[in-house]
Amino acid sequence: MKGLFISIEGADGSGKSTQIEKLKSYLENHNYEFVFTREPGGTVISESIRDIILNKDFMEMSDMTEALLYAASRAQHVEQYIKPLLDEGKIVICDRFVDSSVVYQGHARGLGIDNVEQINKYATGGLEPDITILLDIDAEEGLKRKKDQRELDRLELQKLDFHKKTCEGYRKLAELHSHRIKIIDASESVENIHREIINTIEHIINNRYNYNK
Amino acid sequence: MKGLFISIEGADGSGKSTQIEKLKSYLENHNYEFVFTREPGGTVISESIRDIILNKDFMEMSDMTEALLYAASRAQHVEQYIKPLLDEGKIVICDRFVDSSVVYQGHARGLGIDNVEQINKYATGGLEPDITILLDIDAEEGLKRKKDQRELDRLELQKLDFHKKTCEGYRKLAELHSHRIKIIDASESVENIHREIINTIEHIINNRYNYNK
Repeated sequence: MKGLFISIEGADGSGKSTQIEKLKSYLENHNYEFVFTREPGGTVISESIRDIILNKDFMEMSDMTEALLYAASRAQHVEQYIKPLLDEGKIVICDRFVDSSVVYQGHARGLGIDNVEQINKYATGGLEPDITILLDIDAEEGLKRKKDQRELDRLELQKLDFHKKTCEGYRKLAELHSHRIKIIDASESVENIHREIINTIEHIINNRYNYNK
Repeated sequence: MKGLFISIEGADGSGKSTQIEKLKSYLENHNYEFVFTREPGGTVISESIRDIILNKDFMEMSDMTEALLYAASRAQHVEQYIKPLLDEGKIVICDRFVDSSVVYQGHARGLGIDNVEQINKYATGGLEPDITILLDIDAEEGLKRKKDQRELDRLELQKLDFHKKTCEGYRKLAELHSHRIKIIDASESVENIHREIINTIEHIINNRYNYNK
């Protein structure tokens, strides 16, 4: 595989969407060739699996069913879209990848980090990102940010517990896969975070491609 | 788990559907209480996953995506339907279960028997049938039977190769899981096969339940 595979991860309120938009603009303005994609989705089949996962009539869906559906969607995304692009030598940037499933289903829902990683090894054929940008945020900080810094209400406090588990899960993963996961402090200013992401990604792109800019 | 879990397996042309109908009639006529179900399907969520698997617009579906979708459908079927019935002590008879995925995706499509078994261990939480009735048939015999004994045409001969692999896969599994899989010779007469299935199933039911008939 000659391409470069970058995933971007972060819990709710980490500012992931904002940073992805800024990253895309930067890369476009600096004439990098890259392909952007997201999970769950990316192919027609993956999108139709996503529809089942998100269907509000299916509240009785078991956690394991959900984890296997995410894995099925990802298997198609990798096989039909990501791998062929990487084989052509492209830079592929993916909004969420295996780590999201491991954190949300494996750690926060309690299926087990090892179990969900193993299921996803089958799904991806072992494909891992060359680098994963993790926007690291405290759970309470992240939720507050979504609410414009006001105090949390009762339901939001219940959500906070799940949310804490996702933040905690990401930190665990970052320890487990420190060779690949680059932690970026998401409590910094938008501009500082953006600059750190650019530095990290340009460094690895330039090492791989010798871009002439 | 207090119930009894029976699966019925067999390649195309093994006469599985005929035998299942005869078995159901027999059990009803003899006042056994049992629940019949089938794969893929059995719950609303499983059926909607089945629709994706069988959708003719999705010819580009990868073998691994298909295997994970079967596993997801099965996870829901087990969690929501089969396990609660077994917990109540019911007899559950299932038309196809994990062995079908292992034979079709694992052996015939080449994903590997071990890989597909492992994925399905996650899906079922390790639930295995107490007994599996395998209707064993030679590939050529099975296909001919479907065609009323006439000679096979070119396309049918191509199918024959895949079909041989499924028959072969079932025999391999029967060796691997000889404690659970009961081979029945499906080249026998319909009545003889029926009698052998009844003997096998009544024996295990009577051992488990002390039915008063």
